[in-house]
Amino acid sequence: MLRMSALLGICVLSLLTAPAGAKGDEQVTSFTLDNGMEVVVIEDHRAPVVVHMVWYRAGSADEPRGVSGVAHFLEHLLFKGTETLEPGEFSKTVAENGGSDNAFTSLDYTGYFQRVAADRLGLMMQMEADRMVKLQIGPEDILTEREVIIEERNQRVENNPGALFREQRNAALYMNHPYGTPIIGWRHEMETLDLDDALAFYRQYYAPNNAVLIVAGDVTPDGVRALAEQHYGPLPANPDLAPRQRVEEPAHLAERRMVFRDPRVAQPYVTRSYLAPERDPGAQETAAALTLLAEVLGGGQTSVLTQALQFEAQTAVYAGAFYDATSLDDTSFGLIVVPAAGVSLEQAEAEMDRVIAEFLDTGIDAAQLERIKFQIKAQQIYARDDIDRLARRYGNALTSGLTIADVQAWPDVLQAVTEEDILAAARQVFDRTRSVTGYLMGDDLTEVMQ
Amino acid sequence: MLRMSALLGICVLSLLTAPAGAKGDEQVTSFTLDNGMEVVVIEDHRAPVVVHMVWYRAGSADEPRGVSGVAHFLEHLLFKGTETLEPGEFSKTVAENGGSDNAFTSLDYTGYFQRVAADRLGLMMQMEADRMVKLQIGPEDILTEREVIIEERNQRVENNPGALFREQRNAALYMNHPYGTPIIGWRHEMETLDLDDALAFYRQYYAPNNAVLIVAGDVTPDGVRALAEQHYGPLPANPDLAPRQRVEEPAHLAERRMVFRDPRVAQPYVTRSYLAPERDPGAQETAAALTLLAEVLGGGQTSVLTQALQFEAQTAVYAGAFYDATSLDDTSFGLIVVPAAGVSLEQAEAEMDRVIAEFLDTGIDAAQLERIKFQIKAQQIYARDDIDRLARRYGNALTSGLTIADVQAWPDVLQAVTEEDILAAARQVFDRTRSVTGYLMGDDLTEVMQ
Repeated sequence: MLRMSALLGICVLSLLTAPAGAKGDEQVTSFTLDNGMEVVVIEDHRAPVVVHMVWYRAGSADEPRGVSGVAHFLEHLLFKGTETLEPGEFSKTVAENGGSDNAFTSLDYTGYFQRVAADRLGLMMQMEADRMVKLQIGPEDILTEREVIIEERNQRVENNPGALFREQRNAALYMNHPYGTPIIGWRHEMETLDLDDALAFYRQYYAPNNAVLIVAGDVTPDGVRALAEQHYGPLPANPDLAPRQRVEEPAHLAERRMVFRDPRVAQPYVTRSYLAPERDPGAQETAAALTLLAEVLGGGQTSVLTQALQFEAQTAVYAGAFYDATSLDDTSFGLIVVPAAGVSLEQAEAEMDRVIAEFLDTGIDAAQLERIKFQIKAQQIYARDDIDRLARRYGNALTSGLTIADVQAWPDVLQAVTEEDILAAARQVFDRTRSVTGYLMGDDLTEVMQ
Repeated sequence: MLRMSALLGICVLSLLTAPAGAKGDEQVTSFTLDNGMEVVVIEDHRAPVVVHMVWYRAGSADEPRGVSGVAHFLEHLLFKGTETLEPGEFSKTVAENGGSDNAFTSLDYTGYFQRVAADRLGLMMQMEADRMVKLQIGPEDILTEREVIIEERNQRVENNPGALFREQRNAALYMNHPYGTPIIGWRHEMETLDLDDALAFYRQYYAPNNAVLIVAGDVTPDGVRALAEQHYGPLPANPDLAPRQRVEEPAHLAERRMVFRDPRVAQPYVTRSYLAPERDPGAQETAAALTLLAEVLGGGQTSVLTQALQFEAQTAVYAGAFYDATSLDDTSFGLIVVPAAGVSLEQAEAEMDRVIAEFLDTGIDAAQLERIKFQIKAQQIYARDDIDRLARRYGNALTSGLTIADVQAWPDVLQAVTEEDILAAARQVFDRTRSVTGYLMGDDLTEVMQ
């Protein structure tokens, strides 16, 4: 099956969601069906289209030990048949109705969406409800689709030294928590995924009381409620759904470093990843400060690292900072420097640390902070015009432990961040004992670290 | 309870077992009870004493995710009462009969043993069989004994920078496999261990078909069989015991390094740990070569690292090599150099790598290898006189996936190792992408790595 499966990594997500968060001006209504299914309606009547999304509170970090990749595997299998739909009929029907559909798996959620004409919403719900509880897959589906996900891993990871590097780095960053396991799965475990693994995950997590329905577009809350009650209402809740709780990290006491050498690497770089707190319900201040810290340090041409390393010292061809605020458990704050020709990774790292130390010492330029806040505000206003993105923002937050109130408060929390908040958050997070420094490099021996 | 709980780390184990392995000259008989309990009898009639051991094929690496430490916790709880024994009565009875008892938990097993006059064997079996299936523990036992194991962690780990260092290093070495989790448990998980966790582990793993009984001393196989059938024979097998299978490591692609700083460290050192194969049933050759490699490189005054770094270059005050051959899954091969005054850890590491590279280049001194093999043979002969150690050797092997035949073949496998075998094994294992290099150092900033 050649559809574009959107297996999302942390970096991609951060670009999509970190600086966003509309100011609560979007028209959002929410309610819960009797079977526990949460429903969010985002009205946008500019065009007669609708985005229909079902998000499950189940991602790769909810997988049992030893079956990594099963969340994403199941996402693929949901496009096989059900008791009433032939294999492939789901996407074919969406296309025949002029729509498009896709799905995505991340650490904390799995989501399915369609974008269609608003009058087709009932049909989408009917089909999505059908595959929530009536999936029919057999051994032959397992064999063929397992080849597909392994090939997907080949393309996205094995053939991409940067992706392999990130996998090894996440494994080094997390000592206990499943965020250290790749979303797509460890290859040797993917190769043994079977029907029982997929069905066990399906039966445990695919149920209305573990799902969030997001409908955005030319709809009314009453209209959505009527259709949702008709299609999703009859589905039984899973009475055995346990509270979502993952293992936690032990104390991180030792700074870690890693060197990944691959002859395919033409452009070496250095990264630093710190374990970092995420947005918590009702307590988003530190995450907001870190979101702004990433912008101040690495968000574009006027940022601290870019100015100091690309323009002043000219020791880097790129410098950046990354932070994904929206996550169920502790996330990471990342720095990257791609050195200029003739600059070693050691020098690049030393330069990075020098600039960060100076930044902590001299503080933040008030005009830069105002400019960043203004840009964020502008992005939030533009973002309101993108219903896919709005719908994703709510789905991502609600499957990451946050509430609608948190989503709507987020823009104000971001605007309220002060220079002192950012420096305090930076001092809290920039603790080398809770970090991994990674060197990605080619096999050229002149680059060898020691 | 102040008994000496023998929580064994890999290093300690390697000293006990790696160079041992008697030449099969000990009188060993084995049989299996109808309920699946494996019995090994080692006859030694020099003194009227007996060592009675029950080993369960369940160690810390068999714990479910998130309840680390429960195997060791349960070991403690087994000294609480049963339906017929008062709390503490077990050890009191052993002592009143002139014996001593203890227990130990490792990655792959949990063991209980008593050493008593041979005519008390039946009493030992009666009590051990009793607590295998009739443990009675309540919430108050959990509360008090949980304090004990947390205090044990304080004493053994938190107050010992070297132990904290080893924990963080093992977590960095293993990306997926539970050997990355400490035997005693992560502190934050130990603090939440409860009655259900302990009983679940007990019910799953404490059963005759998951146990190995080792009786060594002034006994006959027929006598042991009669007593074992009387006391252990009536216990029901656990029909739900699953084959023992842990998650495996993904490909290790990036060399890892870590720096652990602690103001309590007076003497810094550098370690290198490589993922390494272990003894497999019927295939012990590589493990034997690695056992000899550890001796050649770091086993005493004439070893390669000691000679080169302590005596010739005088850059080290200690240098060693460690390898624990007996393990259910992939184990590690370790190097350590403690630098002399004025020598930095970077220099010590570079010296270590220089000596290893020279060793791989120049090969092994034939006289040294012969001397080591002779020493091993002598140790094996002496070891036969130590029935505790003999019994442990069988228990350790049989709970680590090996057979009696493997234990008895081991001395010959060791003696058959050639110089080429050792160099081939060294080249296989000394792959930096499968390694963690660790620096343990004080807070003195003059030592800082970069």
